[in-house]
Amino acid sequence: MTQRPFNFSAGPAALPEEVLNQVAAEMLDWQGSGMSVMEMSHRGPEFTRICAEAENDLRELLQVPANFRILFMQGGGLAENAIVPMNLARGGKVDVVVTGSWSKKSAEEARRYASVNIAASGSDSKFTQLPSPGSWQLSADAAYVHVCSNETIDGIEFHELPDLKALGSAAPLVIDCSSHQLSRSIDWSRVGLAFGGAQKNIGPAGLTLVFVREDLLGHALPICPSAFDYQTVAAAQSMYNTPPTFSIYVAGLVFQWLKKFSYAGKTGVAAIEQRNIDKAQLLYGALDGSKLFENRVAAHARSRMNIPFYLRGEYNTPQLTSAFLDGAKARNLLQLKGHKSVGGMRASIYNAMPLEGVQALVAYLKDFEAQYG
Amino acid sequence: MTQRPFNFSAGPAALPEEVLNQVAAEMLDWQGSGMSVMEMSHRGPEFTRICAEAENDLRELLQVPANFRILFMQGGGLAENAIVPMNLARGGKVDVVVTGSWSKKSAEEARRYASVNIAASGSDSKFTQLPSPGSWQLSADAAYVHVCSNETIDGIEFHELPDLKALGSAAPLVIDCSSHQLSRSIDWSRVGLAFGGAQKNIGPAGLTLVFVREDLLGHALPICPSAFDYQTVAAAQSMYNTPPTFSIYVAGLVFQWLKKFSYAGKTGVAAIEQRNIDKAQLLYGALDGSKLFENRVAAHARSRMNIPFYLRGEYNTPQLTSAFLDGAKARNLLQLKGHKSVGGMRASIYNAMPLEGVQALVAYLKDFEAQYG
Repeated sequence: MTQRPFNFSAGPAALPEEVLNQVAAEMLDWQGSGMSVMEMSHRGPEFTRICAEAENDLRELLQVPANFRILFMQGGGLAENAIVPMNLARGGKVDVVVTGSWSKKSAEEARRYASVNIAASGSDSKFTQLPSPGSWQLSADAAYVHVCSNETIDGIEFHELPDLKALGSAAPLVIDCSSHQLSRSIDWSRVGLAFGGAQKNIGPAGLTLVFVREDLLGHALPICPSAFDYQTVAAAQSMYNTPPTFSIYVAGLVFQWLKKFSYAGKTGVAAIEQRNIDKAQLLYGALDGSKLFENRVAAHARSRMNIPFYLRGEYNTPQLTSAFLDGAKARNLLQLKGHKSVGGMRASIYNAMPLEGVQALVAYLKDFEAQYG
Repeated sequence: MTQRPFNFSAGPAALPEEVLNQVAAEMLDWQGSGMSVMEMSHRGPEFTRICAEAENDLRELLQVPANFRILFMQGGGLAENAIVPMNLARGGKVDVVVTGSWSKKSAEEARRYASVNIAASGSDSKFTQLPSPGSWQLSADAAYVHVCSNETIDGIEFHELPDLKALGSAAPLVIDCSSHQLSRSIDWSRVGLAFGGAQKNIGPAGLTLVFVREDLLGHALPICPSAFDYQTVAAAQSMYNTPPTFSIYVAGLVFQWLKKFSYAGKTGVAAIEQRNIDKAQLLYGALDGSKLFENRVAAHARSRMNIPFYLRGEYNTPQLTSAFLDGAKARNLLQLKGHKSVGGMRASIYNAMPLEGVQALVAYLKDFEAQYG
């Protein structure tokens, strides 16, 4: 079989080839059941097993503590921007740290349900820096503090989650971790709730993962739809409404793939985290060493997952950007176009991107520079 | 290739074998793109085309008028039970006709956002009859009238949609058509909004279809999440948040399958509707002619899609019910167990169920009766 193209999409994004092969092989008959997973009742024994195994594997991979519930939901991060305050804000105040496009949207949406305090903003730096936690203006009475732990568009990542207790806040921390969940370990002692769409590191779009500490359940506003009330969803084991069964199945295969994944003498999340570190270092190193390309994010805040880059100065023209993207596609380096709101290029190098994909991109950067630089 | 088992699941449900084969064949490389559809940006040219074709094909199949928008959403029917009143009720009054489990849930959920008038209820008949539209107590000032046009659990279907104007109501009709959409034509002149989860006749769970008349857009309550505001979703061509891309792709293949489907000299929806009529007649005829089995729904209200049935009188024991289900599975007749709330058996015979599947079930009913009757 020939090498598949390397796919740098920001999401929906590349999946491990082994997983896609298994999905294809099982499409008409899942393990002798005579059914595709798409065709199974969500309440039948086959899918009940698939779903329970997926949840257990995810819990094991991320070492999710027993006092957290894992919920399989729908609507993605944008829906969670409303669902979180409907469940947690109790009509009071919430603190939001704005570090880019996604946390800005979260703050706007939360205003429908709560009083929003922008505790800090990276807008002065044009979202190239993370405001230092020591500078955050946290409220004394916030229902929660929201951060986006990886900003997909701006390419900014928290490499250490804030310790709210040390900052004098008793509020639970909510993290939107859509675009880096499962790429690294999580310090759950600092987290009250984590949410993320699956379509980056985990599986098909349409599945949303929510990890919620049990003491935060049961406080939804009366206007919260039942299907989005965390307590209702948790009590029904994510089966209050029909869950996105096929997406959960694919996610479960990704979890199995990751459990077996090994790299640099490590396995599982530790292994993928190390490979993600190595991939990011390779690409940032190439960009920093280039006269033609640049990444503008401060070193302490650079995302391992989403690396926006631009042609420098006079080279930054629509023509040369197009030439770069066309040339990339011709080399089987796909979906490198930057987000429409910021332009330029972006390489999203999620878990499923092999080191070879980043090496191929770096080789292309060098060749392109030799030709046009 | 051997015959696949016949799968009578109420949903997620059987899909056409041709569709599953194509999905498997394209899993690693959609039409030379080098990507699985799961791996494509929802904003890229490939998926934009997939989505537009799916919408166009669906519009053509159901002859959806130009003043209706088709939205691809998430959350299923249960989420729509909240999303509809958040968008349409304007905090006022809504009329609900309760004909079974689903419309009852819709009424309960709507109470969060509106004053609910139960215009009629079939509960006196234990949901074996449809209350005659002439008997409905409609409000003068309802924002809309809700009916579930096919009750999946109770096996009740409206074979003619109510003509609200003729009943003296100026309110738009909202139909929850989850479990029979695309199984028959729709008289759009009588409908303001139609919604349904995809997981019966259309594709994988996790995709919700909403057909909404344009004049009903733009009236969402301030507490309606942006991702569920019909106007926002419509303005963004269902791309406000990342849609369930893979489910839309599979749905699109089902639409293509249905466009080519022919039966009894007809094609498309007319053909599938005729086959659905023939399948239902065959099964109801066998049940009505049996001493061992019964369907309890009045003839005028019998669903073509979901046919609950029970062992009669003294035969209706857990042991004999189990024996029936075990024997069915041994004959490759799958997922015939009734809904947990009503027990017994249920045959869901959606579009993808061939006539041969119903014939096989009828043959088993006769053999079982010969053995135990």
